[in-house]
Amino acid sequence: MDECTVTFFPQNTTVNVEKGTSLLEAVSQAHITINNLCGGDGICGRCKMIVREGEVSGGITEKLTRDEIKRGFVLACMTYVKSDLVVEIPEETLAKEKKKADKEADRFRDFEQTLLSEEFMPSPLTVKLNIELEKPSLANNTADHERLGEAICKKLEVFCSMQMGLKIMKRLPEILRKNDFRVTVTLGMRKNVGEIMNVEGGNTADSNYMVIVDMGTTTIVAHLVDANTLKTIDAKAIFNSQGIYGREVTRRMISAEKRGDEELQKLLVLDINRLINALTEDKNVSLKDITAIVCAGNTAMGHFLLGLPTYNIRRNPYVATSVEPPPLRAAEVGIQINPRGLLYSLPGISAWVGSDVTAGILATGMYERDQISLLVDIGTNGEIVIGNKEWLVAVSASAGPALEGASVACGMRAESGAIERVYIENGDIKYSTIGGKQPKGICGSGIIDAVAALLKKRYINRSGNFILNSSECIETIKGVQSFILSSINGNRGKGIFITESDIENVITAKAAIYGAMKILLKRLDLDFSDINKFFIAGAFGNYINIENAIVIGLLPDIDRGKFEFVGNTSIRGAKMVAFYQEAFQKITSIRRATTYYDLMGAHDYVEEFQKALFLPHTDIEEFSRTSFD
Amino acid sequence: MDECTVTFFPQNTTVNVEKGTSLLEAVSQAHITINNLCGGDGICGRCKMIVREGEVSGGITEKLTRDEIKRGFVLACMTYVKSDLVVEIPEETLAKEKKKADKEADRFRDFEQTLLSEEFMPSPLTVKLNIELEKPSLANNTADHERLGEAICKKLEVFCSMQMGLKIMKRLPEILRKNDFRVTVTLGMRKNVGEIMNVEGGNTADSNYMVIVDMGTTTIVAHLVDANTLKTIDAKAIFNSQGIYGREVTRRMISAEKRGDEELQKLLVLDINRLINALTEDKNVSLKDITAIVCAGNTAMGHFLLGLPTYNIRRNPYVATSVEPPPLRAAEVGIQINPRGLLYSLPGISAWVGSDVTAGILATGMYERDQISLLVDIGTNGEIVIGNKEWLVAVSASAGPALEGASVACGMRAESGAIERVYIENGDIKYSTIGGKQPKGICGSGIIDAVAALLKKRYINRSGNFILNSSECIETIKGVQSFILSSINGNRGKGIFITESDIENVITAKAAIYGAMKILLKRLDLDFSDINKFFIAGAFGNYINIENAIVIGLLPDIDRGKFEFVGNTSIRGAKMVAFYQEAFQKITSIRRATTYYDLMGAHDYVEEFQKALFLPHTDIEEFSRTSFD
Repeated sequence: MDECTVTFFPQNTTVNVEKGTSLLEAVSQAHITINNLCGGDGICGRCKMIVREGEVSGGITEKLTRDEIKRGFVLACMTYVKSDLVVEIPEETLAKEKKKADKEADRFRDFEQTLLSEEFMPSPLTVKLNIELEKPSLANNTADHERLGEAICKKLEVFCSMQMGLKIMKRLPEILRKNDFRVTVTLGMRKNVGEIMNVEGGNTADSNYMVIVDMGTTTIVAHLVDANTLKTIDAKAIFNSQGIYGREVTRRMISAEKRGDEELQKLLVLDINRLINALTEDKNVSLKDITAIVCAGNTAMGHFLLGLPTYNIRRNPYVATSVEPPPLRAAEVGIQINPRGLLYSLPGISAWVGSDVTAGILATGMYERDQISLLVDIGTNGEIVIGNKEWLVAVSASAGPALEGASVACGMRAESGAIERVYIENGDIKYSTIGGKQPKGICGSGIIDAVAALLKKRYINRSGNFILNSSECIETIKGVQSFILSSINGNRGKGIFITESDIENVITAKAAIYGAMKILLKRLDLDFSDINKFFIAGAFGNYINIENAIVIGLLPDIDRGKFEFVGNTSIRGAKMVAFYQEAFQKITSIRRATTYYDLMGAHDYVEEFQKALFLPHTDIEEFSRTSFD
Repeated sequence: MDECTVTFFPQNTTVNVEKGTSLLEAVSQAHITINNLCGGDGICGRCKMIVREGEVSGGITEKLTRDEIKRGFVLACMTYVKSDLVVEIPEETLAKEKKKADKEADRFRDFEQTLLSEEFMPSPLTVKLNIELEKPSLANNTADHERLGEAICKKLEVFCSMQMGLKIMKRLPEILRKNDFRVTVTLGMRKNVGEIMNVEGGNTADSNYMVIVDMGTTTIVAHLVDANTLKTIDAKAIFNSQGIYGREVTRRMISAEKRGDEELQKLLVLDINRLINALTEDKNVSLKDITAIVCAGNTAMGHFLLGLPTYNIRRNPYVATSVEPPPLRAAEVGIQINPRGLLYSLPGISAWVGSDVTAGILATGMYERDQISLLVDIGTNGEIVIGNKEWLVAVSASAGPALEGASVACGMRAESGAIERVYIENGDIKYSTIGGKQPKGICGSGIIDAVAALLKKRYINRSGNFILNSSECIETIKGVQSFILSSINGNRGKGIFITESDIENVITAKAAIYGAMKILLKRLDLDFSDINKFFIAGAFGNYINIENAIVIGLLPDIDRGKFEFVGNTSIRGAKMVAFYQEAFQKITSIRRATTYYDLMGAHDYVEEFQKALFLPHTDIEEFSRTSFD
């Protein structure tokens, strides 16, 4: 094995790597976080570095200007170590904004203030009870531990079996007596058994918070909630730092096999901790008052969180290590809340249909409807569930992150300055940004709109290729045909544009999802017309323009009244579980009742996918209600 | 604070202690284990040391010969540090036999080979199941964790909620596939929740063992049992090493407050580990195949085991930290069995009535009898329970260890060579030893017999004092009137004898127990004649001569047919819990159903105690059926 040293500056960090290692891998080993949206595919062009000393191979791409190449710039993901190196990381390559969770994720703050259920009685997974115990006397000298247990049962008006760790039990006599037998108890539910997680002096029962996390492949969203009022206090989001190991979970699983599951776990936990810190700092909530974290996400993300092996998820016959892991202490995986706080990882269905989907089924209530509903969760994996109160079937399709604004040249998350709407006004293509700010990039809803607009204006054909000379806004930027949405000081290359390969990514994504819906309906001997409710979930679901989504063939051409935006049902379902123990039982039975259908076993999926690789579809009659003008 | 160094040799161990510290404390800080039976009361005379350099105070006692005093001998428990010291520990003072559990504890091997219950279905607290899982396929790609969980429920024919630690879950995919999906699962019950403690390749289900421990204040007994056959394989016993900190638990609790609970915990755990090692070495059982340990004992011992604070046990209003601690991992307290093996500490009733008593109530079945029974457990604390299937009341009386053969000049545990029977034959006092060996000392049953014989022969009066010139075997040894049972080579002082203070200790012990029985009956408005069954429990219970116990007034003078020896019910009840989960539920409800009556609140207890300080009693008419000839 031939080893080289790579020194990065200005960090002045040196790592030893094998010859042939990419600079992207080397920089991740050095634990320096850089901008990288495409996961090392050489697409986003954001991992620029300057090789100051030593020899490399690869690295010259159209993403670099002639001037940059002269000055020694390379793309870290396309450049491989040949000798000892000294590498400079330019300011703009460093992921500054990654260090902190986005504080302006307006879209993720768009939540119901209070989640009230008509169905369930409020019963958070962790509760704080202020209790005044009867003081011991000869007439009542019950032991401390049992005295407390009995008082809790009395207060909760239920009898429940209770556990307490040895550490707290050892301190219990002192805590009780120092506080004159007036204490606050934090109680967590672990399946059927209650756990006394903490006992502290005085009355701190008012301060009981939880964090609800949607662990998306591309975007991680966290909500801070008050367990007493069931109110959501704030929400934040960041791009998933694991992106450095691949845009899709499969690539990350391969990395995990090479580097160990801990590496991927570390990045995810770091992101979650960043979100928690940002949420609590802003709202002056103490970490010790966060008593639980409830996480939903696809199965691979769930495995990364717990450090479980993902080896068999991506190999036939696609078997997860666990889809219903038990509650753990959050500290056990490195999540920084109350040191005894609990981590609930929600139950998923299979290796490829995770707890984000069970949460979605719970949140939409489709599991108790008489009529047939379809739920589509638009994320890096598109998950689709069809069913009613008697049966539920789920599939998963690998869509890629284009619809979330990643793997797109000027893509960005839906935050301040993102182009979120593109529309035709008086024959011209116009746009609006989040917050009305100067455009900084384009997010998922904007991209769908843009593709639809380009198609309607006939600037692209039904295959997604630009039509020669159809618009003066079409230009070759870094060798790729692009449509300029916005230029900066007349410099179109520095502005916001959409490339032909961006459009290709969008078409691939929508074809994967649409094809999966078609296959599932076929297996169930159903048609889109049999669907009574069509739930659209996803972090950015609410912002999709339905007409445009139909124009590009992402959604079917059905009665518009059947569509219902349900937003981030992963978060919503997880919140229901956090607030209502009955909902936890429900989601567990949903997991057991839902059948997983694996597209890998579907001989006709490729055909359906290919048919959907046109705008809107090969079979144009499927979209006969839609006007393209 | 004035510190001195004390160096012990031949160990060459130096400790720093405060001036005024006893040598007994210093030697325990040096972690050197010495002979000490009386717990530092200057009674047993076994903690002899020689001060070679430096100044001490105290230490001259009648336990030392003139020659020994000249040669610098002191009793460590009566000698206090005044300057830096060099101290020699003579060979005979070192607790050699304490290093290993007694391998000849014949009496403790006197157990039922198989404990079968007619009432309960066998269901050990920990089970090993050999399971062959269906291999995953596209048609059945259930996750590993859930696949295993479902197979276990199927095998057990019950549905139970199951937990699995993260460590095992991480290794699960590999274990399953390396072993072709044929594994042995170790399952433990923690209250209502099953825990998958271990998963290993192949079939090791035949090797599943448990250790059952009775943690007596003076004697610790351990049984090794087979969880599959419910057979007891072997049993061993040792004197409790905590004795160095006091004969009675109160003194030890004071030590724990001074030194920290860990010190007392360490000694107890060391003893238990020694017993386990001796049991497993003898029977070729691997520690990893011991999946559970079930412990019973008085409440203070239970606290020492878990390192719980005992501070409030000995202070009015006498409150335990916990009488129903949850199951723990045995490794958490340092017990060396399978690293994931569970420790079940059985539920007790109050600060002064422990799980040895609930185990006794369970083992005797008195909790389900229509008629009234009395259970007396003769140990260092004498516990008494009266009741039937409708009510149960318990008290505890501090008896001291005399009836176990400790705090008696020539006392020893009931093992090979101990005088176990003393009787009158042809007008002479005779004895027999365990195993017919040369007499090495006298054990509990022998001491009761001896006192009865001395009384019958009128060598002692009803106060327990020797009657002048009544026998030529009465002699002054080291300043105390003594009766010589056996002399060695004509040297009576080296033989086995009973001193006046031994007799006093026996009288105090029996008075404490008898007085407590009287008080409890009085409170219940009952008389001894109302008792339908009189259960006698205790490690040496079976060996008591009932007539002699009545002669000295330890047991009441009732119809002999009502007495029933039930042996070590602490072990027997714990074994029932280990083998039958229903018994665990029963013992938990017994704890809740039993009322504790505290003698500290009984204004008339002292009076009853004092009345019993005669042989057999002040009110001789209470013993009218008994012949003293």
